[in-house]
Amino acid sequence: MNTNRQWLLAKRPSGLVTRANFDYAENPIPEPAEGQVLVRNLFLSFDPTQRGWMEDRPSYLPPVGIGDPMRAGSVGQVTESRHPDFAVGDIVQTTGGWQDFVVAAPNQGPMGLTKVPEGVTPEMMLSVLGITGLTAYFGLLDLGDPKPGETVLVSGAAGATGSVAGQIARIKDCRVVGIAGGPEKCAWLKEEAGFDDVIDYKQGNVSDQIKTTCPDKVDIYFDNVGGEILEAALNHINLKARVVMCGGISGYNATEPVPGPANLMNIVTMRARMEGFIILDYMPRAGEAIADLLQWIGSGELKYQVDLQQGFDNIPDTLQRLFTGANLGKQLLQIAEPS
Amino acid sequence: MNTNRQWLLAKRPSGLVTRANFDYAENPIPEPAEGQVLVRNLFLSFDPTQRGWMEDRPSYLPPVGIGDPMRAGSVGQVTESRHPDFAVGDIVQTTGGWQDFVVAAPNQGPMGLTKVPEGVTPEMMLSVLGITGLTAYFGLLDLGDPKPGETVLVSGAAGATGSVAGQIARIKDCRVVGIAGGPEKCAWLKEEAGFDDVIDYKQGNVSDQIKTTCPDKVDIYFDNVGGEILEAALNHINLKARVVMCGGISGYNATEPVPGPANLMNIVTMRARMEGFIILDYMPRAGEAIADLLQWIGSGELKYQVDLQQGFDNIPDTLQRLFTGANLGKQLLQIAEPS
Repeated sequence: MNTNRQWLLAKRPSGLVTRANFDYAENPIPEPAEGQVLVRNLFLSFDPTQRGWMEDRPSYLPPVGIGDPMRAGSVGQVTESRHPDFAVGDIVQTTGGWQDFVVAAPNQGPMGLTKVPEGVTPEMMLSVLGITGLTAYFGLLDLGDPKPGETVLVSGAAGATGSVAGQIARIKDCRVVGIAGGPEKCAWLKEEAGFDDVIDYKQGNVSDQIKTTCPDKVDIYFDNVGGEILEAALNHINLKARVVMCGGISGYNATEPVPGPANLMNIVTMRARMEGFIILDYMPRAGEAIADLLQWIGSGELKYQVDLQQGFDNIPDTLQRLFTGANLGKQLLQIAEPS
Repeated sequence: MNTNRQWLLAKRPSGLVTRANFDYAENPIPEPAEGQVLVRNLFLSFDPTQRGWMEDRPSYLPPVGIGDPMRAGSVGQVTESRHPDFAVGDIVQTTGGWQDFVVAAPNQGPMGLTKVPEGVTPEMMLSVLGITGLTAYFGLLDLGDPKPGETVLVSGAAGATGSVAGQIARIKDCRVVGIAGGPEKCAWLKEEAGFDDVIDYKQGNVSDQIKTTCPDKVDIYFDNVGGEILEAALNHINLKARVVMCGGISGYNATEPVPGPANLMNIVTMRARMEGFIILDYMPRAGEAIADLLQWIGSGELKYQVDLQQGFDNIPDTLQRLFTGANLGKQLLQIAEPS
C-alpha cells in the first residue's frame, strides 16, 4: 500500500449527512517529523458530535475544513516512529480521521496520542473505555451526582454513552429507566444492561410513559437527544433534579432551528440544574474512569455493545447510521487488520 | 372599620390578568386564636410569581383557591395579639393577601410572621430587603458565583429583583449590563444604579446588542424574563457560564406554551450551567443577606426604586402593571396608614 486513501469533507451538510458531503481521494502517505509517529488506522469511531464538526460555526473544536479529511477518533498501529515513547507495532489511540494513515504526536490534535493498554481491545478502547464511556462516567458522576435510591432517566439509552451512563447509575444503586427506539434496543437494556425499566419512544407518548415508569419522579436526567424528549423529561423532574446535558442528537441534522422545551420554568419551580460538559475537559482525569470501568467490566456489572461495520468504502454511510438509529451500541468501522 | 375588605380570586386567568379575575367582597374581621395575631395590612407587595399562584397547577406553593383572597406579601400593623412575641402596634411582615386584615403567626403561611426591624421602612422591607432583594442576593451570589472582572448580564434589569442583582454584581467588581424596556428605565440603570451598560430591548435586535455591549461574552446571565431574551443571551455565553433562572415573566401570561430557546446546545458546547431556585428555600439565611444589603444601602452603593400605588380599589389593576412593564422598580400599593 503506497497511497493514503481518504474521505475529504467536500461540502457542509444541510440536514442528514450523505455520501455527497464527502470526496474520495488518494494521496501520498505523510511523513512524521521528529517527535511524531506515523499511524495506520485500524478502527474508526463514529460519534454524533462529528455532525457538529462539519458545520461552519464555532464550537468546542474548530470546524473540519473543506478539502480536509473528516475528523474521527481512531485506534491504529504505529508503522514508523520518531518519538522515543512509541515503537513500530504499538497499538495507539489518536484522532486518525477518515484515512489510512495519519501523523500523530502526544500533544497534537484533540485526542493526542496514547498507547492502548495491554489486554484492552481496540473495540473496548473506542467504546466503553473511550470517549463515549468517559462521557458517561464523568457526566453521570460529576454532573449528575447520583445518590442511592434516586431515579435516573437516560435518553439515547441504547447508545454508546447512554447505555454506560445508565449502568453506572445502576451500579451506584439508583433506579434506572432508559428511553430508546424499538423492541430490540429496549430488550437489550432490560435483559443485558439491567435497566429497571425502559421506554420505547416509538410506542406512545413519552411524557406519559415517564410518569408511569418513574413514580418517584426523575432525580437525574441524562440527556443525549434534546428536543421533545427533553421537554417530556422536564415535565417529571423532582426537586433539586440534575439534567446532564450530554448531547442533542434530535437537532443535529435539523435545517431550521428546533425550538427548545416550552417548560423550562420547571427548572425554576423544582430548583433544578441543567449543566453541559465536553469530555475533552476531563481527559486529565481519564485514568480514574478507566480504572473503575475496567473493574466493572471484569466483574460483569458493565456490559457494552459494539456495532462493527467493515470497509473503507462504507465510512460515509456508517456515519448516517447514528442519526437513523440503525446502530445498536457503539458505532465502529474497521478498515484494516493489525500486522 | 368593622369589615374586612377583600379581593377574592373569582376565576383563573387565561392570558393577562384583569379585574374580571377577582371579586370584591366585604366580610367580618377574623379573630386570632391563641398563638396568633391580627394584622391590619398597610402595604401590599406585587410580584410576577403571583401570576403562577393563580393557575390551577402544582408549583412551589399550592394554587390560590377560587373564592379565597388573593395571596400577597404584605407589611402591616398588629391590632390584636395572642402571641407573646408580638404587641399591638408592631409593624410586621407576613403573607397578608389582598384584604384589610389577616390572622397571622410565625410558622403559618409561606412568609410566616416577622417584625420589621427598627429603622426599616415598609417600602424597604417589601423591596430591597424583602423577597425581591433576597432573590437577587442569593440568586446572584449562590448560583451565579460572580468573580471580579466577569461580565454579568441581567434581564428585567429595572425590576425589583434585576436592579438589585445587577448592583450586587457591580459591588462584587463585575462588569454589569442590564436589559430593560424604554429610555426611562435604561437611564435609571446607568445613571442611578451604576450599570456599566444597558440594552433597551425595544430598540433593535437584543442578540446584536448583547454582542456589542458584552465584548468578553457573558459569564453570568441573571434571567427574569425567559423566552426570546434568554435565547439571545445563550448566543453569547462564555465558557463555564452560569445562567441563573430566576423567572420567566415573558411567558407568565401566555395562553399557549411558549417554545424554549432553540440554542440550548450552547449549554453543552460552553460547558455552562442553568439553575433554578425559589427564594423560600433561603429564608433561614435571610439574616446574612439583610445585613449585607443594609450596609450597601447605608454606604450609598445600592439604590432601589419603589413604584407606590394607592388605594384598595386599585389592587387588581396594579398587578397588571408588572406584566405591561409600567412599573419602575418594586411595585407596591398602600391601603392604609399605620396608627
